[in-house]
Amino acid sequence: MRTHFCGLIDESSIGQTVTLAGWTDVARNLGGVCFIDLRDHEGIVQVTVEPSNAEVFAVAASLGYEDVLQVEGTVRAREAVNEKIRSGRVEVIATRITVLNKAAPLPFHAHENPGEETRLKYRYLDLRRPEMQRMQRTRIKLVQALRRHLDAAGFQDIETPILTKATPEGARDFLVPARMHPGEFYALPQSPQLFKQILMVAGFDRYYQIARCFRDEALRADRQLEFTQLDMEFAFVRERDVQDFVEAMIRAVFAEVVGADLGAPFPRMTWAEAMRRYGSDKPDLRIGLELVDVAERVKDSGFAVFSGAANDPDGRVAALRIPGGAALSRKQIDEYAAHAAKFGAKGLAYIKIDAAGSVSSPIAKFFDEAAFAALIADVGAGNGDIVFFGAGAYGRVCDFMGALRLKAGRDFGLVAEGWKPLWVTDFPMFEWDEEAQRYVALHHPFTAPAVNDIAELRAHARTAVSRGYDMVLNGNEIGGGSIRIHRPEMQSAVFELLGIGAEEAQAKFGFLLDALKYGAPPHGGIAFGIDRIAALMAGTESIRDVIAFPKTTTAQCLMTGAPSPIPEAQLAEVHVRVRADGASE
Amino acid sequence: MRTHFCGLIDESSIGQTVTLAGWTDVARNLGGVCFIDLRDHEGIVQVTVEPSNAEVFAVAASLGYEDVLQVEGTVRAREAVNEKIRSGRVEVIATRITVLNKAAPLPFHAHENPGEETRLKYRYLDLRRPEMQRMQRTRIKLVQALRRHLDAAGFQDIETPILTKATPEGARDFLVPARMHPGEFYALPQSPQLFKQILMVAGFDRYYQIARCFRDEALRADRQLEFTQLDMEFAFVRERDVQDFVEAMIRAVFAEVVGADLGAPFPRMTWAEAMRRYGSDKPDLRIGLELVDVAERVKDSGFAVFSGAANDPDGRVAALRIPGGAALSRKQIDEYAAHAAKFGAKGLAYIKIDAAGSVSSPIAKFFDEAAFAALIADVGAGNGDIVFFGAGAYGRVCDFMGALRLKAGRDFGLVAEGWKPLWVTDFPMFEWDEEAQRYVALHHPFTAPAVNDIAELRAHARTAVSRGYDMVLNGNEIGGGSIRIHRPEMQSAVFELLGIGAEEAQAKFGFLLDALKYGAPPHGGIAFGIDRIAALMAGTESIRDVIAFPKTTTAQCLMTGAPSPIPEAQLAEVHVRVRADGASE
Repeated sequence: MRTHFCGLIDESSIGQTVTLAGWTDVARNLGGVCFIDLRDHEGIVQVTVEPSNAEVFAVAASLGYEDVLQVEGTVRAREAVNEKIRSGRVEVIATRITVLNKAAPLPFHAHENPGEETRLKYRYLDLRRPEMQRMQRTRIKLVQALRRHLDAAGFQDIETPILTKATPEGARDFLVPARMHPGEFYALPQSPQLFKQILMVAGFDRYYQIARCFRDEALRADRQLEFTQLDMEFAFVRERDVQDFVEAMIRAVFAEVVGADLGAPFPRMTWAEAMRRYGSDKPDLRIGLELVDVAERVKDSGFAVFSGAANDPDGRVAALRIPGGAALSRKQIDEYAAHAAKFGAKGLAYIKIDAAGSVSSPIAKFFDEAAFAALIADVGAGNGDIVFFGAGAYGRVCDFMGALRLKAGRDFGLVAEGWKPLWVTDFPMFEWDEEAQRYVALHHPFTAPAVNDIAELRAHARTAVSRGYDMVLNGNEIGGGSIRIHRPEMQSAVFELLGIGAEEAQAKFGFLLDALKYGAPPHGGIAFGIDRIAALMAGTESIRDVIAFPKTTTAQCLMTGAPSPIPEAQLAEVHVRVRADGASE
Repeated sequence: MRTHFCGLIDESSIGQTVTLAGWTDVARNLGGVCFIDLRDHEGIVQVTVEPSNAEVFAVAASLGYEDVLQVEGTVRAREAVNEKIRSGRVEVIATRITVLNKAAPLPFHAHENPGEETRLKYRYLDLRRPEMQRMQRTRIKLVQALRRHLDAAGFQDIETPILTKATPEGARDFLVPARMHPGEFYALPQSPQLFKQILMVAGFDRYYQIARCFRDEALRADRQLEFTQLDMEFAFVRERDVQDFVEAMIRAVFAEVVGADLGAPFPRMTWAEAMRRYGSDKPDLRIGLELVDVAERVKDSGFAVFSGAANDPDGRVAALRIPGGAALSRKQIDEYAAHAAKFGAKGLAYIKIDAAGSVSSPIAKFFDEAAFAALIADVGAGNGDIVFFGAGAYGRVCDFMGALRLKAGRDFGLVAEGWKPLWVTDFPMFEWDEEAQRYVALHHPFTAPAVNDIAELRAHARTAVSRGYDMVLNGNEIGGGSIRIHRPEMQSAVFELLGIGAEEAQAKFGFLLDALKYGAPPHGGIAFGIDRIAALMAGTESIRDVIAFPKTTTAQCLMTGAPSPIPEAQLAEVHVRVRADGASE
C-alpha cells in the first residue's frame, strides 16, 4: 500500500512518484494551498496539494487530525527547508489522496498531556506521541542488544512455564484454579529461579530468558503486577565469572543503546560498607554525601538517645553533613524529620552552623563545649552546613539516614550528572525476623553461603555472609544474583535454618533436592530488571512509560477494563466461587 | 572453573594443560588404567588416569555415573582414534580430579527410556540425553533465526500483558482472582490478538512477539495449556504483503536451522478446493491421494444413503481410491470404518478389486452393471485397489474421508519424504452453529470479510468469504492469520452477525471499537505455532519433546507437582474458595 516510509523520504527521491500511507498529523490551508503533515512510524513528510487539482484539493481541505490516508504524489525539492526532520528538504505534490479511515474527534491531542488516567484509557493515542514512541523503542533496542550479546556468547534461550507450582516463600503468588483438578491451583512464577537451576542440572551450561514474572504485592510507582527480567544462569562458575561477564554486557549495551559510558571496572563494595557509608544496599553514588559514625564521640554524652545506641552492640549513631544545609528553615527541617520518620526515625537531632559560624542545635546542651566542637570536627561541618543525626538500631538508622541522604542530594542539587554503577557483595545470609521469631533469607533460600561447612554455618548463622551480589546503577538495584547451593545437604541445612522442616522442604522443594542429588554442577546467575533499566535509559522516572500496556497502581488496565467480574457458570467450571466480601468463611 | 569445553578439545590443544568440568558419562577400569568419558554441554572427551598417579587413580576408580568433576590434565594424541566425536583424536591425561558433586544412584540411565511419566518426573535427567539436547537446541535455533530475520526487517518486539481481560469468545480462559478487586478476575491471554491490533492503531507499523498463550482446553498429544506463538502484525498491508514476507521468512529459517528446502513459491489453494480434494483445510500434500466427487454418478442409484446425499445441495458423496488397498482384510476394513466413525461417518461403503480383477462390494447390488462400471472408472480404480465411499452432509464427509486419506497414506507407505508447504486461503467468514442456532467466526471475530460493503455481507453471510489465510506444512497448520477489520462500522456489523449485541460488544470490546474510531490503519498479520514448527524441524511427533518443562495430557507438571492445593488463608486473600466438588451452588 506504499512505496516509501514518510519519514525516510529525502532528496534521493526527488522527481520520483511515490505512494505513502500514514496519519494526518496536521492539515492546513495556507493562502489557497493545502499542506498536510503526513506521519508514519518513521516520521513526517510534507504533502502539498495545489488548488489546480480540484478533486484532490477537496479531499485535502476536509481532513481532520489523525485521518488515515494513502497519498500518491511526486517528490519535489522544498523551498522552505525544515532542518528539524529528515524529510525536511522535500515535499510530495499529491496527485491522489485516499482516506483509508476517517478519525472521530480525538479525546486529546498529541501535544497535550491529559493526565495519566486518560492516557492509559486511550493508550493507543498516547503511544502515538513521539516521546512515547522514543521510550518504547529504547526498551525494544535494549532487549535486542541483550539478546544479540547473549546469543553470540552461546547462551541458550529457554522458555520456562508460566503455569507452575505455588511456592510460599517470598512474595505473594498469583493463583490460577485448575479446571481438571478440582480444588487445586497453578501459580504464576515470581521468577524462573528453580527452573533455571534445574536447567543447569540438566546440562544446559548457560541459559537466559527474557522472562515475565509475577508478584501480587502492593503496587508502588516502580512496581507492576507483572514485570520482565533478563534471567541468566551459568554452570561451573564462581562469582567473578558471572559478574565479569554481565558487567561487560551491561557496559556494552548502555554504550550501544544510549551511547552511555558506564566506566570500567565497576566499583565494588561489600554490603556492610554500603550500609555504613550510604545507609543503603543500593547506594546512589552520584550523590557525594556520606554517613559518618559518631558513636565513639557520643557514647558518654548526656543525651540518652545517643549514648544508649552508641553503647548497644546492635546500635548505631550516624551523622549526615549537608553542605549549604543551614539554609533550611525550621519548617523545612521539620519536613526532613517527617521524611526520616517514614523510614523509622523517632526523632531527628541536628546541628546548624549559619554562614557567620553561629551554631544552633537542640542537642548542644547535652555536650560540654569541647566534646561538641569535636563532634562538629568529626563530621567536617563548617559554616553554612547542617548536620543531621540518627541514633537507634543499626538497620533502622541506616534506613532513615540513607533516605535523608537521597532527599538532601535531590533538594540541594547534589546529584551529579552521568552514570554511577557498582557491585554490592557479601550480603548477610539471613535476616532475623522479630515478628516471626525466625531467620528469613535476605536473597532467597537457594543462595549459597560463603562457608562450605554446614556446622560452621549453623554455629554462626546470624553473621553468615552469602555469595549474593547486586548490580546497582544510580541508586537502583538493576540486577541481583548469587552463586547457588549445589549440594543437597547444604540446601537442607539452609531450609532448616529458615524454619522449613524436612517434611515441608520435601513437599515444597523435593524436586530441587532430588535434582541436586543426581549430579548438580556448581552454578550461579543473576537477573536484571528490564523495565527499570529501560526507564533509566529512556530518562523517565516511571517504568509505566516503557511498558506498552501497564497497569495502574490499583492493578487495573484502564484500556481493557481488567480485572472484571466473571459469570458464575464460568467460575463453576474451575471449581471456585467468590467469597462474601470480607468474610473469612 | 575450566579452561576448555570437553566436547571442543581437539588436536590444536595437544601438549597443553587444560582444566575441564563436567559429568562422568561413564568410568571404566580397563587393564589397570581408568578411562572416564567426561561430558559437558559441548560433548565428550576421554580422560585417562594411569595407575602411576595413585592419588588421582583412587578418585577415578571410585567414580559413579553422573558424578560432577573438575579435571586438570594434559592433552595427548590418542592411539585408538574415535571418529564419532570431535575430541576423538585426543585424550586428557589427568593430573588432578576434584569431585565437585557426587551423584546418587540414578532412577534411570541415559540410554534407557523409562516411559514418559518417569522422564517427566526427572526431567533434568531426561534433558541430559543427547537426543533431548538436540531437540531443545533445534527449538532455540528456530527462535533465534526468526528473531534475527524480524529484527533485520525492522519489526518491533513488544511485550503485551499476561494478566489481562477475560474474552468469552473462543476457547476457555484461565482465570486469576484479583486480590485488590474482590470478586474480579484477570484472564491469561489466548493470544495477543487485540493488543497487536491496538499497537497498529498506536502507530508501531510492524510488530512481533514470541508470545506465550493460554487455552484451558482438553489436552491432546499436540496441545499444552500454555503454548508459544510467533505473533506478528503489519500496518498498511494486503494479504500478499503479509504472505510474501512470512513465506520468505519460513523458507529461510527452515534452510538455516535444518537445511531444509521448502521450495518456492508455496502452492496456494482456496479452502473450498482443499476440502474438495483433500477433505481438510490443512491437507498433507505429501500424500498423493485425492477425494473424487461421485454425486453425479450415484444420484439416481438405488442406494438411498448415496442418492439422498447426492441430491442434497448441502450433501456430498466422495470416493477415495487406495492403490493396493485390496490387500485389506475384512477386519482391517472394519478398522477403517471405525476410524471413519470417530470423525462422524455412519457407515463406510467400499468396492474392492482384487489382483485378478474380481470385484467385491456391499453396494454393488444397488447399481446396474454399467453404472457400477462407470463408477469404478470415475474413480480410476484398477486391480489391487480398494475404494472407500462417504456420503452425507458436506462438512462431515470431508472430515471422515480426509481422516481416511491420512490413515491410508500412513498405512500404505504413501507419505512422500520431504516438505510440502502450502497456503490455504478464502476461508468462509462464518460457520453456522446448529446447537447455538447462530453464526460463529471461523477464524476470529476480527477477521475482515472479502467484501467491503456491510449490506452485502449481511445479505450473503452464509457464503461470505473472509480475508483469512493459513500456512500448512505436511498436514499441520503452522500459521494462521488474516487481514483485520479496521473500520468500526464493519466490526460492529460482524459482531451483530455473530449474535453479539451492541451493548455486549461495547462491554467486551469497547476499547477495540474506540481504537478503530480514532484513526486505525488497514492492518493484518499472522501467528505461527513455535512448538509445532520446532517439533517438525526436530523430527518428533510430540511437541513435549521441544518444550523444556511440558505438562502431561492431564495438565500436570510431574516434576514440580503443579497444580496443588492451596491453604485456605491464601485463598481468602484473593477472595475465592473452592466449591464442594461437583456442586453447582
